[in-house]
Amino acid sequence: MALRRSIPLLEWARTYTRADLNGDLLAGTITAIMLVPQAMAFSLLAGLPPQAGLYASILPPVAYAVLGTSRTLAVGPVSVAAIMVAQALASLPPDSDRLAASVLLALLAGIVLIVLGVLRLGLLANFLSHPVLSGFTTAAALVIVAAQLPSLLGIALPRDWQPDDLPALVAAFNPAALAIGAGALALLWFAATGLERVLRAGGMSAAAASSASKTAPLLAVVAGTVAVGVFDLDTVHGVQVVGSLPAGLPELDLDLPGWTTLIGLLPSAALIAFVGYVESVSIAKTLANRRRQMIDPNQELVALGAANVSAAISGGMPVAGGFSRTMVNFNAGARTQAASILTAALVALVALLFTPLLAHVPKAVLAAIIIFAVSRLVDVRTALLAWRYDRIDGAVLLTTALGVLTLGIETGLVAGLVLSLLAYVWRASRPHFAVIGRVRGTEHFRNVLRYSNLETWPHLLLLRVDEHLSFANTVYLEQALMQQVAARPKLEHMVLVCSGINGVDFSALEMLVKLTLSLRAAGITLHLAEVKGPVMDRLRETELMHRLPPGRVFLSTHEAVEALRSTRHPRGSRDSGK
Amino acid sequence: MALRRSIPLLEWARTYTRADLNGDLLAGTITAIMLVPQAMAFSLLAGLPPQAGLYASILPPVAYAVLGTSRTLAVGPVSVAAIMVAQALASLPPDSDRLAASVLLALLAGIVLIVLGVLRLGLLANFLSHPVLSGFTTAAALVIVAAQLPSLLGIALPRDWQPDDLPALVAAFNPAALAIGAGALALLWFAATGLERVLRAGGMSAAAASSASKTAPLLAVVAGTVAVGVFDLDTVHGVQVVGSLPAGLPELDLDLPGWTTLIGLLPSAALIAFVGYVESVSIAKTLANRRRQMIDPNQELVALGAANVSAAISGGMPVAGGFSRTMVNFNAGARTQAASILTAALVALVALLFTPLLAHVPKAVLAAIIIFAVSRLVDVRTALLAWRYDRIDGAVLLTTALGVLTLGIETGLVAGLVLSLLAYVWRASRPHFAVIGRVRGTEHFRNVLRYSNLETWPHLLLLRVDEHLSFANTVYLEQALMQQVAARPKLEHMVLVCSGINGVDFSALEMLVKLTLSLRAAGITLHLAEVKGPVMDRLRETELMHRLPPGRVFLSTHEAVEALRSTRHPRGSRDSGK
Repeated sequence: MALRRSIPLLEWARTYTRADLNGDLLAGTITAIMLVPQAMAFSLLAGLPPQAGLYASILPPVAYAVLGTSRTLAVGPVSVAAIMVAQALASLPPDSDRLAASVLLALLAGIVLIVLGVLRLGLLANFLSHPVLSGFTTAAALVIVAAQLPSLLGIALPRDWQPDDLPALVAAFNPAALAIGAGALALLWFAATGLERVLRAGGMSAAAASSASKTAPLLAVVAGTVAVGVFDLDTVHGVQVVGSLPAGLPELDLDLPGWTTLIGLLPSAALIAFVGYVESVSIAKTLANRRRQMIDPNQELVALGAANVSAAISGGMPVAGGFSRTMVNFNAGARTQAASILTAALVALVALLFTPLLAHVPKAVLAAIIIFAVSRLVDVRTALLAWRYDRIDGAVLLTTALGVLTLGIETGLVAGLVLSLLAYVWRASRPHFAVIGRVRGTEHFRNVLRYSNLETWPHLLLLRVDEHLSFANTVYLEQALMQQVAARPKLEHMVLVCSGINGVDFSALEMLVKLTLSLRAAGITLHLAEVKGPVMDRLRETELMHRLPPGRVFLSTHEAVEALRSTRHPRGSRDSGK
Repeated sequence: MALRRSIPLLEWARTYTRADLNGDLLAGTITAIMLVPQAMAFSLLAGLPPQAGLYASILPPVAYAVLGTSRTLAVGPVSVAAIMVAQALASLPPDSDRLAASVLLALLAGIVLIVLGVLRLGLLANFLSHPVLSGFTTAAALVIVAAQLPSLLGIALPRDWQPDDLPALVAAFNPAALAIGAGALALLWFAATGLERVLRAGGMSAAAASSASKTAPLLAVVAGTVAVGVFDLDTVHGVQVVGSLPAGLPELDLDLPGWTTLIGLLPSAALIAFVGYVESVSIAKTLANRRRQMIDPNQELVALGAANVSAAISGGMPVAGGFSRTMVNFNAGARTQAASILTAALVALVALLFTPLLAHVPKAVLAAIIIFAVSRLVDVRTALLAWRYDRIDGAVLLTTALGVLTLGIETGLVAGLVLSLLAYVWRASRPHFAVIGRVRGTEHFRNVLRYSNLETWPHLLLLRVDEHLSFANTVYLEQALMQQVAARPKLEHMVLVCSGINGVDFSALEMLVKLTLSLRAAGITLHLAEVKGPVMDRLRETELMHRLPPGRVFLSTHEAVEALRSTRHPRGSRDSGK
């Protein structure tokens, strides 16, 4: 059982059926057809040689297939991780080995994920709020599109280009490259919107039409490559092509660089791991819910970590679960991770046999594939919804997006994360509290602002706070309580009704000690009532409880009122309670 | 009234009495005696010429006296702000004008505070939790002591010293300087611990003895200066002295540097402002509570901001309310800010008349004064209490302290702040929720885990969540709800009882939409019950409410149960509700 939990493959392999196989065979093939051009495209996007993406599409999906809890997640190179790698590599000295650095990023990302998984910290995904993720993804997609435009236009940007050079550079665009790129874009767009309908009108079955329309990226690549070959576009017309790839499978090895490089790349690797993890789990959950399957967030950390480590071993780039490929896999009928293993085998076959052909793929087609894939990530609707629903959430989304666009991917993401945390604490900083009074003739207590004719006493104040006490609200609460005191010159006893308090952090504890002393200096005794068990266990050993006498801790508000409503000499009454 | 609120001086000046004057005269004088050597010492600590601290002790207390809501807060140069200035200046090019940069820091800090005050963002003080503040202060005090040791030992550290040089540098200590410094430390220590008792035993009144013991810093300075003069310690024995100060009062002017410098110093200035503000308000509140006075956190932002701007105008350094000086002021009987105005006048007199004498003050004595003052800030007890009370709070405190010691004051503080925010969200990430059932024959519902014999139904699940829904807990809640569903194969209706939900942020809203769709795909309808008014107002216009039908929103849990407990065909029953 424990083994099956840590190796989910054992679970689904045990009950594997013929029907599973049929679904997986079709889905695995279609996903592979989509993956090969995407893998090369994402390599180029990351500023790496094209084989990096192919290598990252072989071992990682197999590692995930063994360890992952999602049956349909398609793991491999993804666009957002690719652009994050590109920006991380941009900070390296110009003569660095970029592929080695990418391998290191994958290794570090994998280690980070595995460590978090072993520590069972899957809930860390909490820290990425929806507005931050949405703003980040949209802005990253725009950055990616901008990064691909030169390839689409056939412009070779020099490394040290200046904004002033831009008009001249754009004017020098390559018409042949643009024609191929625009043609590929048109093909992809038609395949996504009208092709299925046309094929079905032509008598094809719905399933076959849907599968056929998924081959559009491959078609675009083949058509582009054929065009290059027929018209000598690369040698005569200067259309950039992928260029020669090393034949065969990657050698499995791992050269470790020095500590300085490791430490320098660690923050980038952690962010890549974090974003990839959150995106992957989010997709995996959505699809698992549809089939009433469960995703284990901690096991996912380990599985995605292992996928990244295996990407590093095979000389690739960081990987994650890709949204569009996973949807294609799922919709093509994938039932288990056997589909992913088949995909990996097909990619390996391509890497073994077809590298000479891949060398002639025009970059403009790959740029078109990327632009088409990421343009769906631009999500203005969510931004509008968030803004309309909640100004703070909308502002967080907008700030993250603007941060990514102006300060860079990583800085923008971190700024968004910190801002969302600040916003969270800010929201919690004015907790609800109520002065309560007794419903006549009962043991019930209600907010005096909402109910009339409640019993209250000038020397006794009952205050109920409906939020756990923490540093986020100590400043406000102390101020609010002292204001209540200042308005009641005859006050002798204040009872803090703790029925809504689920926790008291150290800052709040210190505030309560200070409050007790301040109130005592003003001749008022602080009491507690209805303290929850776990909270009381914590408080028992603290300074507060040693300072609180002559104040007391009552089991119920009613008990507090009975003990305090008539007495004006708290010290004399200490023994009357239990 | 409004004028009196923005200028609190008008309030206390109106009711000023003879008794107030007596208290303020004594307190103002004693505070001035303490302030003059401290002001010079903090200047040197900040790496500034000694007059910077004196200048920052004249206008700023007056500005605060006019605008501040604390009657007894003593505003001026403080040790923590001084070391923060030192570290901010350390990042400047070596040939920069350090005094000009310090003036700029004060100006920016002042502007930041005033802007926050005008925006009424006093609650921002929330963001600095007690563990972060405590860890920061302790570590900063240790950094300050380390920074003062060379002056105490009479060692002139070259700017580019290396750790390897340390033994040689320490071996070259100046015995005369060390003797003076150690003597000053002994005097300060005796004054703080035994002097008062000795004086009272000698027949002095308690009040006089207490006041006399406060003159120790001045005594140390006078004794040290006399020793320098008598034994020619500066010229013959190489004891470092303060050196010549410009005579007279500062010229009021303000040279503004370029934007780049401004932007570069802004983060440091904001941190200095933030820490100074939180410390000042904390002291001010403690003392105000003792006399049942109130502090207005927003007005304090304006007052401390104005104090910093006036420090900049007079060519000084950033200021805040100092803990030790404020306590001395309060205990010496200060009743109003008239005491601060008197202190400022006395410092101005010193700056006018006594600068030739101040030039001979040995630096070792000033180092002793600083070391003695900040050694009280080292607070191991709070660290132990925090660790014992709550491991997370303890870890935050420790990380902040270690961060300040190893990464520097600013980075350490920011790391602590971010960690405390992460810890806060982490704590909120597993909210309490309960499956509830009906107490037989009533309309009351209780947690099925705590009460036995409750009515439940296999096709109907009642779930109550006791926390506002936000990005901090969506991951956990979605997982937890789906687990409840997976355990109930006959489930048809899930009712989310929202009586404990005070808010739903955008991330949680998206989660609810996704949950609704997932449940519907699994044949389950999601309903809401007891949604609070403000939450409902928000939700009404959202996608959730358009997706929720055929799910319904019930006013009470009872109503939900009555509508759903017998029906197994939710769609057919839609019209039966109201």
